[in-house]
Amino acid sequence: MKFNSLHDLYVEELRDLYSAEKQILKALPKVIESTHSADLRTALSTHLEETKHQVNRLEQVFKLHNEPAKAETCDGMKGILEEAADILDHDENAAVRDAGIISGCQRVEHYEIAAYGSVRAWAEQMGHREAAQILQQTLEEEKRADKKLTEIASQLNLESVRRAG
Amino acid sequence: MKFNSLHDLYVEELRDLYSAEKQILKALPKVIESTHSADLRTALSTHLEETKHQVNRLEQVFKLHNEPAKAETCDGMKGILEEAADILDHDENAAVRDAGIISGCQRVEHYEIAAYGSVRAWAEQMGHREAAQILQQTLEEEKRADKKLTEIASQLNLESVRRAG
Repeated sequence: MKFNSLHDLYVEELRDLYSAEKQILKALPKVIESTHSADLRTALSTHLEETKHQVNRLEQVFKLHNEPAKAETCDGMKGILEEAADILDHDENAAVRDAGIISGCQRVEHYEIAAYGSVRAWAEQMGHREAAQILQQTLEEEKRADKKLTEIASQLNLESVRRAG
Repeated sequence: MKFNSLHDLYVEELRDLYSAEKQILKALPKVIESTHSADLRTALSTHLEETKHQVNRLEQVFKLHNEPAKAETCDGMKGILEEAADILDHDENAAVRDAGIISGCQRVEHYEIAAYGSVRAWAEQMGHREAAQILQQTLEEEKRADKKLTEIASQLNLESVRRAG
C-alpha cells in the first residue's frame, strides 16, 4: 500500500489495530485462566468483553470510510503477546505470576493507547467526526483498563513481596 | 529463570528493558535520517541522547542490586521496531511518513511507559528507594517524549492533509 495521503496511512493503521484486537481476543482467555487473583480475573474478563466491542467499533469505522474490514498483521502486538505468553508458564508463585500478567497486559493497553491516539487524532484532522468519536470511546476504555490494572497491581505485588520475604 | 519472588520478575523485566533500550539505540539513527520535519528531527535526536542516559541508568540499577547488566531479548520492542522500519520505506509523501514515524515512536514510548511503570512500582514496593528514583527519572522522560511527539504530530498531520486535499 502506498501512503500518498494521510487517509492511506490512517486506513493502514486501522488494519493494524484490527489485527491487534483480534490477536488480543485470541490470547486473553488463556491469560484469564492463569490468573490467581479474583480481582484480576474479573478485570481481564471485563476487558475481554470490551475487546469484542472494540472489534465491532473498528468494523463500524471501516464501514464509515467504505473500506473493507481487513486486518494487517500487527507485529508489535504479536511481540507483546509472545512475551505475555512466556509469563503464563511460570507457576512458581501465583502472586508473582499475576504481577507479570498485569505488566504484560499494561504493555498491551499502552500499545493500544498510542495507536488509537494516532488514528483518533488523524480522523479528527481529516474531519471524520463520527469515526473520531468512535475511536475515542475505545481509547478511553483502554486508559481505564490500564488504570484498573495499576490499582490491582499495587495490591498483588505487596502480597508477593510478603510471600518472598 | 524461575519467578520465585517479585525480585526475580523484577530482574527479568529490567533485562527486557535493557534489551529494549539497546534496540532503540540501534534503530533510532535511521529513523532520524528519514524525517522531513525539522522539529521531529530535533525531538528524536534529543531522545536518542536521552536513550543513552536511560541505558546508563539501567546499568546503575543492575549495579545497585549486584546483578550483571544483562539483556534478555525484548520481543515486544522487536515487533514495534519492525513495524516502524516498514514506514521508513514509504517516501510517497514526506509529511505522511513523518506522521507514521511519530505514531511508531509513540508505540515505542508507550511500551516503555508501561514497562518502566511496572519496574518502578515493584522497586518501591520492595523498598529499593534509590532504584525506584532512577527508574522514575526515565519514566518521566518517556512521558515527556510522548507528549512532545503528540504536539509535533498535530502540526505535521494538518500539513499532510493539505497536501492530500
